[in-house]
Amino acid sequence: MTAMIEISETERTRALLNATPGWSGVAEAHGLDDETVGAILDEAARFARERLRPLGRKADAEGCRLVSGRVVTPDGYSETYAQMGRDGWFAMDLPEALGGQGLPIAIHSAASSFFEAEAMAFMMSAARPGAHLINSLDKAAAAEWVPRLATGEWSTTICISEPDAGSDVGRIRTKATAEGDGWRIDGTKCWISFGDHDMCDRIGHCMLARTGRPEDGTRGLSLFLVPDRNKDGTRNGVSVSRIEEKMGIHGSPTCVMAFEGARGILLGEEGRGIQQMFKMIELMRLQTACQGLGVAQRATAIAIEYAQERRQGGRPDAPAVPIIEHADVRRQITVMAAATEVLRAVIVELSVLLDQAKAGDGTAGTLAAFLLPLAKNFGGETAFTVANGAIQVLGGAGYTREWPVEQLCRDARVITIYEGTTGIQAQDFLHRRLLGDRGAGLAALLGRARPELENCSDKKAAAAASSLIDRFVALSENLAGQSDGYASPDV
Amino acid sequence: MTAMIEISETERTRALLNATPGWSGVAEAHGLDDETVGAILDEAARFARERLRPLGRKADAEGCRLVSGRVVTPDGYSETYAQMGRDGWFAMDLPEALGGQGLPIAIHSAASSFFEAEAMAFMMSAARPGAHLINSLDKAAAAEWVPRLATGEWSTTICISEPDAGSDVGRIRTKATAEGDGWRIDGTKCWISFGDHDMCDRIGHCMLARTGRPEDGTRGLSLFLVPDRNKDGTRNGVSVSRIEEKMGIHGSPTCVMAFEGARGILLGEEGRGIQQMFKMIELMRLQTACQGLGVAQRATAIAIEYAQERRQGGRPDAPAVPIIEHADVRRQITVMAAATEVLRAVIVELSVLLDQAKAGDGTAGTLAAFLLPLAKNFGGETAFTVANGAIQVLGGAGYTREWPVEQLCRDARVITIYEGTTGIQAQDFLHRRLLGDRGAGLAALLGRARPELENCSDKKAAAAASSLIDRFVALSENLAGQSDGYASPDV
Repeated sequence: MTAMIEISETERTRALLNATPGWSGVAEAHGLDDETVGAILDEAARFARERLRPLGRKADAEGCRLVSGRVVTPDGYSETYAQMGRDGWFAMDLPEALGGQGLPIAIHSAASSFFEAEAMAFMMSAARPGAHLINSLDKAAAAEWVPRLATGEWSTTICISEPDAGSDVGRIRTKATAEGDGWRIDGTKCWISFGDHDMCDRIGHCMLARTGRPEDGTRGLSLFLVPDRNKDGTRNGVSVSRIEEKMGIHGSPTCVMAFEGARGILLGEEGRGIQQMFKMIELMRLQTACQGLGVAQRATAIAIEYAQERRQGGRPDAPAVPIIEHADVRRQITVMAAATEVLRAVIVELSVLLDQAKAGDGTAGTLAAFLLPLAKNFGGETAFTVANGAIQVLGGAGYTREWPVEQLCRDARVITIYEGTTGIQAQDFLHRRLLGDRGAGLAALLGRARPELENCSDKKAAAAASSLIDRFVALSENLAGQSDGYASPDV
Repeated sequence: MTAMIEISETERTRALLNATPGWSGVAEAHGLDDETVGAILDEAARFARERLRPLGRKADAEGCRLVSGRVVTPDGYSETYAQMGRDGWFAMDLPEALGGQGLPIAIHSAASSFFEAEAMAFMMSAARPGAHLINSLDKAAAAEWVPRLATGEWSTTICISEPDAGSDVGRIRTKATAEGDGWRIDGTKCWISFGDHDMCDRIGHCMLARTGRPEDGTRGLSLFLVPDRNKDGTRNGVSVSRIEEKMGIHGSPTCVMAFEGARGILLGEEGRGIQQMFKMIELMRLQTACQGLGVAQRATAIAIEYAQERRQGGRPDAPAVPIIEHADVRRQITVMAAATEVLRAVIVELSVLLDQAKAGDGTAGTLAAFLLPLAKNFGGETAFTVANGAIQVLGGAGYTREWPVEQLCRDARVITIYEGTTGIQAQDFLHRRLLGDRGAGLAALLGRARPELENCSDKKAAAAASSLIDRFVALSENLAGQSDGYASPDV
């Protein structure tokens, strides 16, 4: 707990990066020294504190509105969006050739966690997932879109869900019809974050639509890029039907979108929409873990600050003592801080693995895929539990809007729902990771964990961890025995 | 889970009452047969569903406002308050001689849980705690106030907390000064539920104020009844400074109150304010458990209804199946339903014990006091966990205001904070219940649990429960050994 008070998030992140096996190689490949990393993270932390903190609070109170068919965002959004675009924060890990900063994913994760801590709802406007998707699939579209996404001039959304196709993506009905050298899209999409907004000139909807038969399920889906307006500024058959009223993330307009004969281009191959989206989905899952870290970090910091200031208890004939001196309050905060820092370590490790995978390390990629559903769930659960714990530390004050912890709790609640619910992550983990890949994910984990435990100087802790791993392996083998064994999954 | 769907809350409650050892004696003493109990509970359930359900939803959206110094409650509150007063729902367990129904506490608990399920915020306006308090301490005041509280003509609040005296009640500064045959009260009180409202003619504030020196802590506190206005309708130096903006229970105005030379009467003995309040605090703690049960019951019911209607998954070439058919959804709902029904059983048992204690059974009273802090925490935790679980079952829909589960989660969040936080309940349990009373509470528990387990036909379950009890006894003895043993506590 002392460490949480005395050492900044930046310093904690740097220490974790430097303790992560693969980081030195990644940093070297990117020409990054520790000082530069420190400068980037310090600047991100400063921007988050000074600019995003007031914005995030204001946006929760103000919310987004649908006015004459357009989404009006809270006061200050446009200026901040433009500023973050100019400063390159939306493009940290995009390629330099397309206007990005060319930094490792690990740096994006670290910096963006600071942003998520202050304005999670606003940060959902970032076009990075769409930029990565377009960049991976279509050179011409990438040349047109990515530089403008990097600067914040244009934006993107990801449109997957429909009213009758949530977790069950195979039931997507939105129809794509070939016309000339392009496509026409008709259908309804829902749960679209920043489906419309007033912060930039053009929004490209990266969407799944059906090119095959309904009975083909996910195999009949293709990926399209559908701009909300044409280059001449005229509308392209895309409109917002409604924005949802939600428990939290009021600063993120969640839209129901209607596509009526909207013109779009096919991204990648017809019928391979789901598979092509997967790399981007991996980045989104990592991002939800970063959201979780941001919320948990901020909630813990507020709980510590409050507990140092608020005085209650002690002898009635003496001044009251700061509540952080009460054992039970210290216990609560210690548990919150520990969960937060373990989550930070998970994110650093996972981000570095993804950077190694990007550079061609197959084992790192396998291990990253194995850890991603776990990190997504752990991030969501930790954010909610820690924010909830912060409310308890603040007591009645925490339940009021005078303090930001109830907002953090409301905002965090969505994390275990979107980008694949906890149950969907569990299915992915069990079928595609643990039993799928012919056991490669588990082997990759054990290949790193076993030697690390053997070399661990704390023998007692190592024995406890080894015993846990043994039980996990036994459970995995039992499950594999009940199914067809470790085998490549069907999907 | 089938039981949750097929058997109504009324039937479940009746079955539990009839399975509770002391209930038949309590029912007989009150001249109640099973049919009458059923009629009362069915009517409570109907009123809750038809009248309180829409009110509770509307109140969350509308909230309360402070207009020219008076609290304006949501549309429909006044009519419903008057109706509930006329129908006797506020006075179920108040004495018949003073306009009450003379029913057991167990019937109040059961019926009020149904009300809490639909409009927890509104139900905080009930004057029952104040009515019990006045009735127990002052015959003249009781004759004047209780009949009018029973009908809803007048109301009460409980004023304990102050800005610098929350959990630490010994630091209360509000000053009571003797004047003639009465007292003048000066000070600030906060977190006062329905500190003001527009639903009745007169509000009596039951409040702790200091008659002794600050260094006397809780021993210098006395209890007063301070009406907001005099009998002639003129104001009595009581005003609302602010209402809090909160995460939930928007339909309950949480007031900061100023007392400036307000005239009041002493209730009971000078310097014994805290002790005198304790019986009422016991009833409030039980009520928080009923709030928890109400929320959990409603959240579980909505989750089941939704899961039966919502279709997702199954073979892509066949219609989607109701999500309740998915094993993971069934698992989530089963856990929620089990927690809810265990909480209901705890409340029934505890309420019957309180009824037995009221009739002079000392052991029942000791056991009830032992269980109360546990029931309060269990109620608060269960409500929040189950409401949170319901959001997960509903997925994105659960996160929107279209469904009431996010409101239930926000409302439930306060339960582990007010009426003594979880940590304060733990202190009460450890110091006053487990180690205090010379071990009488633990002995009372064991005196019931051990024979019940010996006579239990499920030997495996009994052995597991016995082992848990043995560990709890060993822990208790260890803790008693570390302190001064089982002894009457200082407070």
